[in-house]
Amino acid sequence: MIRSGAQLFRERGVSGTSFADVLEHSGAPRGSVYHHFPGGKDEFAIEVTRYAGGLIGGALRGALEGDDPVAAVRSFADMWIGVLESGEYAAGCPVVAVAVDAAPGPGTRAAAGDAFAAWESDLAVVLVRRGVGEDRARSLATLVLSGIEGAIVLCRAQGSAEPLRRVAGELATVVGAAVAGSRPPA
Amino acid sequence: MIRSGAQLFRERGVSGTSFADVLEHSGAPRGSVYHHFPGGKDEFAIEVTRYAGGLIGGALRGALEGDDPVAAVRSFADMWIGVLESGEYAAGCPVVAVAVDAAPGPGTRAAAGDAFAAWESDLAVVLVRRGVGEDRARSLATLVLSGIEGAIVLCRAQGSAEPLRRVAGELATVVGAAVAGSRPPA
Repeated sequence: MIRSGAQLFRERGVSGTSFADVLEHSGAPRGSVYHHFPGGKDEFAIEVTRYAGGLIGGALRGALEGDDPVAAVRSFADMWIGVLESGEYAAGCPVVAVAVDAAPGPGTRAAAGDAFAAWESDLAVVLVRRGVGEDRARSLATLVLSGIEGAIVLCRAQGSAEPLRRVAGELATVVGAAVAGSRPPA
Repeated sequence: MIRSGAQLFRERGVSGTSFADVLEHSGAPRGSVYHHFPGGKDEFAIEVTRYAGGLIGGALRGALEGDDPVAAVRSFADMWIGVLESGEYAAGCPVVAVAVDAAPGPGTRAAAGDAFAAWESDLAVVLVRRGVGEDRARSLATLVLSGIEGAIVLCRAQGSAEPLRRVAGELATVVGAAVAGSRPPA
């Protein structure tokens, strides 16, 4: 049900996804909604956000494993380009879907905020390891995530991956210059 | 009704906004829905997107009037910081709300794509006038809009304007360097 929720949030947003949609998509029995999610839609949306945040965070950490932030930015953007192209631009980021939807309670939006903060921190840690100062590393990490998430929205609206390709190129240049201009700590 | 729609889309998304909500918010009489929008919710969402895209585009063009793209980026970001802070992070960009919502038809999403393309073009024209090459101007304009729109989503999720402040600073640096490294056309 949580996997189905993530898929449906990506396509339809949170308000656009009912428990009936989730049951139909997942094939779960009707009674499982209140058995697993006694707190209703808010509790469900929080669990979906944590699951999706963890999954995307895992992909980002995988991309960062080589300690090469420029390659990681390109690889993370390429993953999203693959998602957009294979889904014909009908599905985006489930965590963004949660953040822009007012239907769920404040706990759901906070779960989206936590996911973004975790991704930002993962990226900033590697930038610091490559010698970028802590404040700059944080603001660069925010730029990278904001740029990629914003570009995913533009790609969906325009039915093309070109906005994200352009943004990934610009971000790789900015991050590369920041790393090149830094000395790794001794 | 269109002004109310833009406000409600910003807060609740498109799926989360019913015609009943729009009538209540605007005080318009019940019959006006099918009188003004015989095409139903799709037609309404397209009109709201065009209205909102024009309004935000007007603010961006105002910021660009001095032909100073760095000041324009800061001023456009500051406008959004004001919107986020005054609305306690409950409302974001209505055009993003349309782009990530699957409820409206393809015409609505295309209207969002047109709005983003128009803003991008307005910004790229000024970058070219300041000597930046056409391809670079376009990719920088995409970065600026994606970065600001993505950061607005992060701000809403985290209940803070800090992500957008950090992104605005990074974008001002990138745009400033591009303009400084270019020669205005003779």
